[in-house]
Amino acid sequence: MTEIHLQADERIDYLAGTALKLIQSREVFSFGIDAVLLAAFPRIPKQGRIVDLCAGNGAVGLLASPYTQAEIIEIELQARLADMATRSIRLNQLTEQMRVIKDDLKNSPKQLAASSVDLIYCNPPYFPAGSASNVSENSYQRLARHEVSAKLTDVVSVSQQLLKPGGHLALVHRPERFFEIIDSLRAAKLQPKRIQFVHPKSNAPANILLIDAIKDGRRGGEIFLPPLVVYDEEGNYTAEVKEIYAFKK
Amino acid sequence: MTEIHLQADERIDYLAGTALKLIQSREVFSFGIDAVLLAAFPRIPKQGRIVDLCAGNGAVGLLASPYTQAEIIEIELQARLADMATRSIRLNQLTEQMRVIKDDLKNSPKQLAASSVDLIYCNPPYFPAGSASNVSENSYQRLARHEVSAKLTDVVSVSQQLLKPGGHLALVHRPERFFEIIDSLRAAKLQPKRIQFVHPKSNAPANILLIDAIKDGRRGGEIFLPPLVVYDEEGNYTAEVKEIYAFKK
Repeated sequence: MTEIHLQADERIDYLAGTALKLIQSREVFSFGIDAVLLAAFPRIPKQGRIVDLCAGNGAVGLLASPYTQAEIIEIELQARLADMATRSIRLNQLTEQMRVIKDDLKNSPKQLAASSVDLIYCNPPYFPAGSASNVSENSYQRLARHEVSAKLTDVVSVSQQLLKPGGHLALVHRPERFFEIIDSLRAAKLQPKRIQFVHPKSNAPANILLIDAIKDGRRGGEIFLPPLVVYDEEGNYTAEVKEIYAFKK
Repeated sequence: MTEIHLQADERIDYLAGTALKLIQSREVFSFGIDAVLLAAFPRIPKQGRIVDLCAGNGAVGLLASPYTQAEIIEIELQARLADMATRSIRLNQLTEQMRVIKDDLKNSPKQLAASSVDLIYCNPPYFPAGSASNVSENSYQRLARHEVSAKLTDVVSVSQQLLKPGGHLALVHRPERFFEIIDSLRAAKLQPKRIQFVHPKSNAPANILLIDAIKDGRRGGEIFLPPLVVYDEEGNYTAEVKEIYAFKK
């Protein structure tokens, strides 16, 4: 059995609905619902290459792994998070399928061949650098949540370079930046095709946005999927969200 | 009492939830749920001037009338529909508040002062000229549904000219044309602010789109309202839609 060292603040969580284990740390970084929704959003290609541009501790790639033979590459700038992701891959004995590149995503086009990727996942920083988010943050979270390093334009530019024609970018972001996002995607010929808004409650405005864009996809025919509501009247997950957490693709 | 002549195919309907009467004709034109959703969507200004650019038989203006002292002007190209709208205004004894201009909306900037309108309503033709819609149509319906005369770009250009700075355009349209619509609005400095998708059922993609755009509004901060679902599992109107039909602003 593989022996994995855990740091003092770390714990091993099971990814709900799976046999997959993930190293997390409440002090450093834990994945959120955004990662789960993102992982489940696109059609996962059975073969080829999948890249997560903002991998964090690697939850999205791990969730996708049972559904594909594709190589899964996780790119993460922060050494501590990249290390957690690397150890989680070893913990799940997925080193043949998955690997971590600890680097700025802007360097990916030097490390991976152009037009080589079938699916890019990205859960990028949501907030412009310098803006306030409404929660307290440690330095890891600040870098993961604010566009200090990875900007939307970087994600779009790198995706344009790495994706095969017809390849998909699955992006989770904030609805307040919807116009900026679709303008940026379309300017790079990444055509937004499937769009879903996620509402915390059925009577609340959307607070999460999911977009599936196709490189060199044809214009028009965009599909606004049924909205996803996270919590019911009693504050429990809705049936739809429970199903996504169970992650049966 | 005002005497109103009805043509053979016409009937008088009550607008649900109101004491308002509307002349309709199954053979010629009856208003749909789109008109009701549109009427209820924006904040209705208490004073000033409201214009419906694609008035049909005048349902939207009539629905708004109890909630405002504003002058309401209904623009309709088709003589038969304009005549129905005119007679409905007389039938409701609203000739002091409302009037019909039977003309192409493209001529409105010659008839109404620039920057004079507080709220523009528009339920324009949804389908490009020459395209097929999925229902059989008479010639009235064809003109109302296809961009034979009124094109999206015409609606946007006229709205830009007629609205006061800060005035609102409330538009109902089809989600498949969302990107084209928001590009066109923003190019004319009509900033989309409140956006709502309407789904026929909770698990179906949106088939109606509502947009509230502000002339010279600031960029960013767009709000995706809670989705509206029209029918419940049993095929009855949902509570939200019943409430909109009751039209208590």
